[in-house]
Amino acid sequence: MDTWLLSRMQELRDLQGLIGLATWDQETYLPAKAGPARAHQLATLQGLHHERLVDPRLGEALAKAASQDSLSEDERAMVRVLSREREREVRVPSALVKALAEAQSSALHAWREARKAKSFAVFQPGLQRLVELRREQADAYGHGGERYDALLEGYEPGMRVERLTPVLTALREHLIPMVEKLAAAHRTVPRLFDGRRYDRDAQWAFTVRLLKDMGFDLEAGRQDLSIHPFTGGTHPLDVRLTTHLDESNPLSAITSTIHEAGHGLYEQGFAPEHYRTPLAASPSMGLHESQSRLWENIVGRSRPFWEHYFPVLRAAFPDALHGVDVDGFHRAVNEVRPSLIRVEADEVTYNLHIALRYELELLLVRDELPLSELPTAWNARMEKYLGVTPPDDARGVLQDIHWAWGELGYFPTYALGNLYAASLYRAAERALPDLSGHLRRGELLPLRDWLRANVHSQGFRLPAEELVRGVTGRGLTDADFLAYLREKYSALYGVSL
Amino acid sequence: MDTWLLSRMQELRDLQGLIGLATWDQETYLPAKAGPARAHQLATLQGLHHERLVDPRLGEALAKAASQDSLSEDERAMVRVLSREREREVRVPSALVKALAEAQSSALHAWREARKAKSFAVFQPGLQRLVELRREQADAYGHGGERYDALLEGYEPGMRVERLTPVLTALREHLIPMVEKLAAAHRTVPRLFDGRRYDRDAQWAFTVRLLKDMGFDLEAGRQDLSIHPFTGGTHPLDVRLTTHLDESNPLSAITSTIHEAGHGLYEQGFAPEHYRTPLAASPSMGLHESQSRLWENIVGRSRPFWEHYFPVLRAAFPDALHGVDVDGFHRAVNEVRPSLIRVEADEVTYNLHIALRYELELLLVRDELPLSELPTAWNARMEKYLGVTPPDDARGVLQDIHWAWGELGYFPTYALGNLYAASLYRAAERALPDLSGHLRRGELLPLRDWLRANVHSQGFRLPAEELVRGVTGRGLTDADFLAYLREKYSALYGVSL
Repeated sequence: MDTWLLSRMQELRDLQGLIGLATWDQETYLPAKAGPARAHQLATLQGLHHERLVDPRLGEALAKAASQDSLSEDERAMVRVLSREREREVRVPSALVKALAEAQSSALHAWREARKAKSFAVFQPGLQRLVELRREQADAYGHGGERYDALLEGYEPGMRVERLTPVLTALREHLIPMVEKLAAAHRTVPRLFDGRRYDRDAQWAFTVRLLKDMGFDLEAGRQDLSIHPFTGGTHPLDVRLTTHLDESNPLSAITSTIHEAGHGLYEQGFAPEHYRTPLAASPSMGLHESQSRLWENIVGRSRPFWEHYFPVLRAAFPDALHGVDVDGFHRAVNEVRPSLIRVEADEVTYNLHIALRYELELLLVRDELPLSELPTAWNARMEKYLGVTPPDDARGVLQDIHWAWGELGYFPTYALGNLYAASLYRAAERALPDLSGHLRRGELLPLRDWLRANVHSQGFRLPAEELVRGVTGRGLTDADFLAYLREKYSALYGVSL
Repeated sequence: MDTWLLSRMQELRDLQGLIGLATWDQETYLPAKAGPARAHQLATLQGLHHERLVDPRLGEALAKAASQDSLSEDERAMVRVLSREREREVRVPSALVKALAEAQSSALHAWREARKAKSFAVFQPGLQRLVELRREQADAYGHGGERYDALLEGYEPGMRVERLTPVLTALREHLIPMVEKLAAAHRTVPRLFDGRRYDRDAQWAFTVRLLKDMGFDLEAGRQDLSIHPFTGGTHPLDVRLTTHLDESNPLSAITSTIHEAGHGLYEQGFAPEHYRTPLAASPSMGLHESQSRLWENIVGRSRPFWEHYFPVLRAAFPDALHGVDVDGFHRAVNEVRPSLIRVEADEVTYNLHIALRYELELLLVRDELPLSELPTAWNARMEKYLGVTPPDDARGVLQDIHWAWGELGYFPTYALGNLYAASLYRAAERALPDLSGHLRRGELLPLRDWLRANVHSQGFRLPAEELVRGVTGRGLTDADFLAYLREKYSALYGVSL
């Protein structure tokens, strides 16, 4: 490949890494008064990244490279991935970029006010403006009649409404009766978090042990504290996780560390030959999320995992966990209960929260639902899918920040993450016949190595579904996820699902 | 001022801030394996900064602005400062920039090897190449016959060999007999660091208390740990200090915190109207260093300061400091002893280490000393100025990293820092008649406020010496510094200096 083109690819990756650094720092160590200064610095970096990406010389070099026969397969993939990203960026007029940034900023402010006032009406004009601009942006990107596709493409390249809707609808229809059965089942779980104190240092030590056991390389990454846990960093050898310590509930830190480490292992697992190129990236948010959810839920809430780790946990918190056994603990971390808040939802009800959001934002983007009716539509679906009614908009339609950021098309990637996770895990079980034995012995590396070889090291060579198909033998499906839930929760609840 | 020009100034400052962030992170939190990735990211940022600075459109905008009558005085200063920086950058051909970077990299490697081998010969070819390239660079910058001036200008704008040499020579001639007298004086000091342990947490807490007392704003900055203490950051509201904890010697952390906080207060003290412009900067390294040395030495080794803080220190380390009183402690932190290593030197001998380096690098840049004779010339001066003989090159000519970085012209700024510090402190004493009373009561804010008003908030409006002249009534002089030493050390040592 042309030296100039390669150096531009590297420069773009370096800028993205620096945006990652400035963002990570903002959430971890930035002094309180430096917020506005950091916003300027980030805007400058993002402006430079945009300028370099839309540079016509880059477009010419990419076009020229695409027509060359001498490129390797990886080089062709690099050109393809960057061309796609560039074309999307080029198509949005800078006036629209500016209008979106302003609309996001004021919608974010309105959203915060609306949550305080518990009133969607306060947020409605800001959201209206954002939805209109995002429709405009979808048209600028281009689509085949379904605007939502153009937005989805920004998070889940290659995915389409036509493909996604039947899967999420069928999933929803399977989940509703399953949730009903589980909610009706009588079961006792120990109350672990009723005022007991869990020492912060011991929580931290436990999370670091998990990171090490999972094979997260602490010489090529780190863990820090932040209010909201996230995975960031600057490079596959500089992957930064954060967690959050809650003195009354160590599961908060434990599950968030395992979740973020799932993302982090993905980032650390990119192939060295892809570093500083467009291929050192996940092909989609959904596939990235599959890694965090596979570790957090399928591994980190499993019986074999806790057979190994519960004794360790009890040794770390001998007073708080006095009298609790692995059975009770495992039941407690797998309690299914229809609830109002997505981020607190268990793995059975979770996708119903997503189905609801996906359906609503599809209606909004298609202009088939007046915004004034959004809270009513939200509440109606909550009742229908989960049997619960939000007492106010703050615990209903206003609960997530995503729409205030103008993110339409993002929510379904969470469900895709769950579905891909189950399918990949099933494939891992076939490849590693003693997988649950490994977990029972605290051996997490065989699974990490299998994921690294089959998923992480592929980077962005293939679109997400195609990559999954290559590994599992089939593409997007709810079958593995539903089978996983049925098997696990039938046993846990003693009901037939 | 032109909006475009202002936004380019801001962009350049943002890029400098981001270079500051990436550098700070490299020394504090960067994972071990990410070094090469960070080097790429920094090179990308520096490349973009260079590209924006030499952009001909910026040159035109600056030239146009310089010819406008409508600019405010500050705006004229911004244009002047940035034009000067830009012209220097433009004059160095990119081939030379590249050659210098490569020569630095290999000289740095050779310097490390040479130190291990304790042999200057290993370093000599690398240094030879760097000196030649720096001469070439000096010619590219342009000068009036004295190449060293062009290099000095990079650290100490406006300063010239013609002005500097007589001052440093006279200073040297005053110091040599002073050091001799002090070295001959008999004096007993308590041995504080002979294996006693000083708790790290207590050291940290003491340094944080000092930062607060000095008025370093911990909401507009922070302190972290690093191997070598430094001051960095991204903005006057995001100033980052580091310190280093040594369990056997708390003075290491204390003096480095006070020193770096002196730099940090300067950065935090820039005027808000100068943020993100070329004026939010010190006019010289020497003036910047004056602030760190004023606080570290003149305040932080003074009797009034320790009358307040020694009881606090003793309370923090009751075992280690058992039986030590403020008299003994004050003597111990002000021990004058000719020694081999600059960074361990006391404030009386320190400038002799600088005079030696300045004289030698002037000879090197003028091509008046063959490099093969450098160790001999070094050792001869050590004997003449300080009466000590380096046992090997590692503890002699190879001790500093500066020349391996190609930094010729930097060392004198340390001496300028000492001289400016004494003159500014004398002016502060005139303006604050109860200054030593303030220190005795632990009131450090009056001094900080005076420095902020008279030095920090001026930013880069004036060249360093002109700024100092405006505050003290005269420019660069060794008189205040020598008077300070004579007064302090005559009393401490009971000799007539």
